[in-house]
Amino acid sequence: MVLILNGPNLNLLGQREPELYGRTTLEELEALCEEWGAELGLGVVFRQSNYEGQLVEWIQQAQKEGFLAIVLNPGALTHYSYALLDAIRAQPLPVVEVHLTNLHAREAFRQHSVTAMGARGVIAGFGILSYKLALVYLAEALEVNP
Amino acid sequence: MVLILNGPNLNLLGQREPELYGRTTLEELEALCEEWGAELGLGVVFRQSNYEGQLVEWIQQAQKEGFLAIVLNPGALTHYSYALLDAIRAQPLPVVEVHLTNLHAREAFRQHSVTAMGARGVIAGFGILSYKLALVYLAEALEVNP
Amino acid sequence: MVLILNGPNLNLLGQREPELYGRTTLEELEALCEEWGAELGLGVVFRQSNYEGQLVEWIQQAQKEGFLAIVLNPGALTHYSYALLDAIRAQPLPVVEVHLTNLHAREAFRQHSVTAMGARGVIAGFGILSYKLALVYLAEALEVNP
Amino acid sequence: MVLILNGPNLNLLGQREPELYGRTTLEELEALCEEWGAELGLGVVFRQSNYEGQLVEWIQQAQKEGFLAIVLNPGALTHYSYALLDAIRAQPLPVVEVHLTNLHAREAFRQHSVTAMGARGVIAGFGILSYKLALVYLAEALEVNP
Amino acid sequence: MVLILNGPNLNLLGQREPELYGRTTLEELEALCEEWGAELGLGVVFRQSNYEGQLVEWIQQAQKEGFLAIVLNPGALTHYSYALLDAIRAQPLPVVEVHLTNLHAREAFRQHSVTAMGARGVIAGFGILSYKLALVYLAEALEVNP
Amino acid sequence: MVLILNGPNLNLLGQREPELYGRTTLEELEALCEEWGAELGLGVVFRQSNYEGQLVEWIQQAQKEGFLAIVLNPGALTHYSYALLDAIRAQPLPVVEVHLTNLHAREAFRQHSVTAMGARGVIAGFGILSYKLALVYLAEALEVNP
Amino acid sequence: MVLILNGPNLNLLGQREPELYGRTTLEELEALCEEWGAELGLGVVFRQSNYEGQLVEWIQQAQKEGFLAIVLNPGALTHYSYALLDAIRAQPLPVVEVHLTNLHAREAFRQHSVTAMGARGVIAGFGILSYKLALVYLAEALEVNP
Amino acid sequence: MVLILNGPNLNLLGQREPELYGRTTLEELEALCEEWGAELGLGVVFRQSNYEGQLVEWIQQAQKEGFLAIVLNPGALTHYSYALLDAIRAQPLPVVEVHLTNLHAREAFRQHSVTAMGARGVIAGFGILSYKLALVYLAEALEVNP
Amino acid sequence: MVLILNGPNLNLLGQREPELYGRTTLEELEALCEEWGAELGLGVVFRQSNYEGQLVEWIQQAQKEGFLAIVLNPGALTHYSYALLDAIRAQPLPVVEVHLTNLHAREAFRQHSVTAMGARGVIAGFGILSYKLALVYLAEALEVNP
Amino acid sequence: MVLILNGPNLNLLGQREPELYGRTTLEELEALCEEWGAELGLGVVFRQSNYEGQLVEWIQQAQKEGFLAIVLNPGALTHYSYALLDAIRAQPLPVVEVHLTNLHAREAFRQHSVTAMGARGVIAGFGILSYKLALVYLAEALEVNP
Amino acid sequence: MVLILNGPNLNLLGQREPELYGRTTLEELEALCEEWGAELGLGVVFRQSNYEGQLVEWIQQAQKEGFLAIVLNPGALTHYSYALLDAIRAQPLPVVEVHLTNLHAREAFRQHSVTAMGARGVIAGFGILSYKLALVYLAEALEVNP
Amino acid sequence: MVLILNGPNLNLLGQREPELYGRTTLEELEALCEEWGAELGLGVVFRQSNYEGQLVEWIQQAQKEGFLAIVLNPGALTHYSYALLDAIRAQPLPVVEVHLTNLHAREAFRQHSVTAMGARGVIAGFGILSYKLALVYLAEALEVNP
Repeated sequence: MVLILNGPNLNLLGQREPELYGRTTLEELEALCEEWGAELGLGVVFRQSNYEGQLVEWIQQAQKEGFLAIVLNPGALTHYSYALLDAIRAQPLPVVEVHLTNLHAREAFRQHSVTAMGARGVIAGFGILSYKLALVYLAEALEVNP
Repeated sequence: MVLILNGPNLNLLGQREPELYGRTTLEELEALCEEWGAELGLGVVFRQSNYEGQLVEWIQQAQKEGFLAIVLNPGALTHYSYALLDAIRAQPLPVVEVHLTNLHAREAFRQHSVTAMGARGVIAGFGILSYKLALVYLAEALEVNP
Repeated sequence: MVLILNGPNLNLLGQREPELYGRTTLEELEALCEEWGAELGLGVVFRQSNYEGQLVEWIQQAQKEGFLAIVLNPGALTHYSYALLDAIRAQPLPVVEVHLTNLHAREAFRQHSVTAMGARGVIAGFGILSYKLALVYLAEALEVNP
Repeated sequence: MVLILNGPNLNLLGQREPELYGRTTLEELEALCEEWGAELGLGVVFRQSNYEGQLVEWIQQAQKEGFLAIVLNPGALTHYSYALLDAIRAQPLPVVEVHLTNLHAREAFRQHSVTAMGARGVIAGFGILSYKLALVYLAEALEVNP
Repeated sequence: MVLILNGPNLNLLGQREPELYGRTTLEELEALCEEWGAELGLGVVFRQSNYEGQLVEWIQQAQKEGFLAIVLNPGALTHYSYALLDAIRAQPLPVVEVHLTNLHAREAFRQHSVTAMGARGVIAGFGILSYKLALVYLAEALEVNP
Repeated sequence: MVLILNGPNLNLLGQREPELYGRTTLEELEALCEEWGAELGLGVVFRQSNYEGQLVEWIQQAQKEGFLAIVLNPGALTHYSYALLDAIRAQPLPVVEVHLTNLHAREAFRQHSVTAMGARGVIAGFGILSYKLALVYLAEALEVNP
Repeated sequence: MVLILNGPNLNLLGQREPELYGRTTLEELEALCEEWGAELGLGVVFRQSNYEGQLVEWIQQAQKEGFLAIVLNPGALTHYSYALLDAIRAQPLPVVEVHLTNLHAREAFRQHSVTAMGARGVIAGFGILSYKLALVYLAEALEVNP
Repeated sequence: MVLILNGPNLNLLGQREPELYGRTTLEELEALCEEWGAELGLGVVFRQSNYEGQLVEWIQQAQKEGFLAIVLNPGALTHYSYALLDAIRAQPLPVVEVHLTNLHAREAFRQHSVTAMGARGVIAGFGILSYKLALVYLAEALEVNP
Repeated sequence: MVLILNGPNLNLLGQREPELYGRTTLEELEALCEEWGAELGLGVVFRQSNYEGQLVEWIQQAQKEGFLAIVLNPGALTHYSYALLDAIRAQPLPVVEVHLTNLHAREAFRQHSVTAMGARGVIAGFGILSYKLALVYLAEALEVNP
Repeated sequence: MVLILNGPNLNLLGQREPELYGRTTLEELEALCEEWGAELGLGVVFRQSNYEGQLVEWIQQAQKEGFLAIVLNPGALTHYSYALLDAIRAQPLPVVEVHLTNLHAREAFRQHSVTAMGARGVIAGFGILSYKLALVYLAEALEVNP
Repeated sequence: MVLILNGPNLNLLGQREPELYGRTTLEELEALCEEWGAELGLGVVFRQSNYEGQLVEWIQQAQKEGFLAIVLNPGALTHYSYALLDAIRAQPLPVVEVHLTNLHAREAFRQHSVTAMGARGVIAGFGILSYKLALVYLAEALEVNP
Repeated sequence: MVLILNGPNLNLLGQREPELYGRTTLEELEALCEEWGAELGLGVVFRQSNYEGQLVEWIQQAQKEGFLAIVLNPGALTHYSYALLDAIRAQPLPVVEVHLTNLHAREAFRQHSVTAMGARGVIAGFGILSYKLALVYLAEALEVNP
């Protein structure tokens, strides 16, 4: 089972600056992730919160809840939440950080990721396919047999 | 209807460093805003939270709740909450950022506003009258007839 | 009586990048300020100069000329004129700094205000209404009876 | 009565990077604090939250709840939470900031403390004994007779 | 057909700091990419150069050579080659930047990518699987039918 | 007609640090510009001021005065006059910025040009020939027939 | 003859923040300088302007006007007027920069002097005696016999 | 004879971002330079390379090859190639640095020129006419009789 | 035995800015430390020097002199003495850095501690009680039985 | 009595870079200071040390030794000795900082004075006359009758 | 056998700024190195390239070519070639970085060495003797018997 | 005769972090230097001090004491002692700065050398052989005949 976590404002997906973030809604993305997970032999649980504290706790509890890996889109918290970084480092599961947009091609403040310092790797810029690639990676890394 | 949002520590208004922030309490400010709104033909809903996540969600939902504009005093979140900035940009209502004090005359860290990058404008330094000016502006901008 | 001072290039108002600064000319803005002042019980004197030295002197002499307050749009001098800052601090009248545009949403060099360090407060981003809000504030602060 | 507040990820104490943070759990630390408090004549209430907003509110309400002092380990919020700083400054109780590790010997971003600007002092680097030293100080400062 | 380009020192793959970059050689990676490409319906051409000028020219000519996309691991040039950035921007094919290691978890100078400003997206930190994920993405984006 | 504007201290040309700025006086340069203009079919008006405000106004009024282009040597104002930058941007004529010396080979503070951000281009380092090159360009750009 | 030049806001001397700048007016200071000069055998001409351009021109013309040295208090222009610096460097007379206050003990922006890079020396922090010391120096340097 | 050198990606001229760099191809520009040179009495040799090393060597050998001057458009190497700077300084011919676009009006990283520190001067922002102006200058400086 | 070292200007304790540093003299502090040490079962030797070199040597020789730990108040050397840092790191005893004042609440230059990078921990802001807390810690850490 | 203190390397005066520091030796300067002091009614004691610690102590003890003021040339310590700054601030006598050269016209690191933050004022750039001016000032400030 | 590599512009040795780099040509230096090597029992191979890529490859292949150590003068690449740094780190031979001039006494950009982060040590400022010292070191380190 | 000076903490050589600084003691290094000097025909005097002032004075007096050159390992003073820099520049003997470790491969603060700005050259990273290389250089430079 893979835990997919989405940070602040990702609940607005599909409405928010669609030329930037695309027209798929978060619900549709959840369905797609489940579908992609199923193809890859991965169960998927999909959550979103606008609260840093909630995201910290979901990361802390992921292993106890039985998850094997985390896909994390921290939203704007990417750029300042050292608390998320500490949560990532404080637990043993692999964390794949994903972003819909290519942060390097946006405002200066989006070019530094605080949370990625604790992640296994980062996938950014491929729209909703960033999530699919994270699942493809985890299926390989966890040696799942679809 | 205008949504007036207040961020961390504004619930302490009137008690907290009164020589800086004045002696009006948040409840009194709420009453004043309602009064000023009434004079201007604007209904006013007044909220406060110490949680970034709660403020993000109030901003996200403001349009669905039927508000036509937002007055936002982000408190200290002004200086680091990219999540609030994203929430402001992700919704179409005009946002007027207000501050009780003149941030340019205070500590260096208070001289940069992260959230104002997404606001229509900023009113800072006029004590509780900053809120009144925001309402005066919105009455004009929304072409309300008092 | 309120002295409204406009700095470099504001004489081009209405012609200069109208999508940014609007289509009202400086003459029309002067008339509007007089009108708004009249409604608020405030006499208004409106001046513009492209010379830092002239602005410094108008600020220095404002109290002797009988003004009770100053509304100041320093134009580009906002960002480097420590001489204006010193003039503001060297005289006792309240100074309200106004800007047509939201400086926080523009180039990096416009996000720091040297002059605002000496002002009572700042109103930025509301087009010509920034001036009106300044007058509304001064009417309150000076306890004028319209 | 002293309020001991712990910020994000301190609930993982004992599990999280034990070579850095030690093997004592938060529950065990709570018991130790109560014990140390008892020896010093100080009642102790011990709380932890991963939410900045919750910590802000506990600090705001501490005096009303009858506490005489606060011991605060803000976790990673130390480095960016101006909201916590404002909460500390907005209330009159002495606040002692504590850290398990010596922040000066770690990553660059951990060498600046935003919250300590409002604290009475800082104790960092002594593992769980940092908490004990804070209590020893408060017993002296509050002139408790054990 | 997809062009996979590798920059300076990637010819040492498998020998160079294997605990960091893994033990697969560049030849083995080439074979794997061909295999992964075949599964995905993508032909793959794999090249390496230690010369910035050569990489610039391969990118410039990619479209004329009939490629539909580029996967680029710029090696250390990532951090200073504005010439590579200009080459990426000067041609219309999608470019996916890949890195074996998670740059955000390494030295400070590796945390800024000059070339990624021109790429569609970045995949970093998954060892040789970073290349596979790039191909998975391109198969989707180019709507290849394997 | 082309308006050639010279900023602070250029009236000292020929006297001031001649090993750096050459021995031609401003009057001689004016005559040369008229001569060069005549050869190129361009009328030339040549002015100098040590006042930022005067330069701002000459730029503002250039089009109304019937000029088709401006050649501007802002002197030391190059490095801090955002008011000049705004004036350049606020009017539609092409502005060619010229400098006698190569600013990149001098003190650090001379290596940043505030005004060039608004100019069409910059010619620096060719002594008085910098002015001639500006005229050659304008003759081409304005499609003058000498 | 020594030319004593005073920059922006020094005409307010005696009124402006007297706890900082003292209670002597500019007129009184002029009289004192004449008196001190007389004792030292130095004629003194005393001027003030709020215009950078005027100060530049007074410096440029000082030698032609027959002055042997300049005492310059550039006021706030000290910190940004590269035009004044160029004027100082472009003429051969010794320039002594004076300040009433000790700039090193004030705001950060006052700790860098742009104009002093061209001066012979700086005297700062001795109130109106800074001017006297400058005259004492010049009497020595010019080998005046009082 | 004048050597005209073009750096990385200039071989794409006419195709690459034509709204920025124009529609003239490098071959057409070469022909134009020959034509302009002929008018000015200057033979012209025109080269392009995407390799820093090649450009360094062309500059080193220019004098031995019989050239009297160099026109250099270093492309993106402008911003980081200290090796080009050293090559320019290590040989005695005058070097005129040219750019098609006005670097001061583009991204921050393009506003610093490393190579211009060694050049005689810089001409930037006039499209292909930047090259013509360089030749006009050299014809004057070399006192060619066309 | 614990060695307590005091750096520059601490010999002025009690006289120097007493509202900041308190009214206890260094001699009184020495007596208090001996008293506190006695209660804790720790012998205490107390020294002060205004010489960096002397402090370096006391630290170097501490172990040979039979001390088990060092309490160090480096005074202003805290902020620039890399020599003290090297001395601390070059010897095996635990070093507790103490400060009378809370450095985070003072001038910017006092917010960085060079020496703390080598210490076990830091105690700052509790006046003379900072020394007592250091002794309390060492009694625990050295497992002294009072 | 005035104490004149000289920091590191001032004992080399007259030999060290005489084109910069002049040819007067420290002994000759001492004699001159005594002579100047005598004219002004001021006794003078003149000391030099290359040890920061010694300078700190001379400053600390100056008042006890019966001095009424200090003239301090801290030499290179000017730029980093926070210990000297603390010593200056910790004692009540007026301190006049002097420098032989104009620090603003030298290397960047010499343009910031750490010690001047605590001084009454600074006199720099007048060679040995800087000392004389300091004495002239002190004679005035101490109201000595020569 | 020791491989001596020389970067960009070192082929100009003897001609290029001889007051800085000396009058020995690269051919003469090669002969000297062979001579010095012979005295020390070290065979020496001497190469130069202006291409970063070539230098990277010579470093990569040095061990396979049978060399036991590398002496590297990276020329201007010292300051920006992370690719060279990676090549140095990716191979096991000791690398001694040499420079003819003392980089610390030159322009600011020459004071940071990117490549030295991977070298065993650096020898800079001794002209051609820097190479001899490198060979002396290697003869010791490789325990050659001359 | 060559004077070899060692700064703070070098008296701990052999004990201090031996994996970094080696196991040779300072006494053994002194003996080795004498031995190396003897082989090279150079007398050697070897000193160490932890006092900046002492080092400054040894450098000042070296020529008078009859030394022909100085080898200086400033220890941590390398990074902040402008007083040492001034001492080096104030005397005419060649100074070779040596370091046991490669400063470029250590903490950021060790990568800038203040003292090297005045030295003839720097040798760093070769353990105790750094001293030998310095002597080899001086034997050559002083044209000693061993």
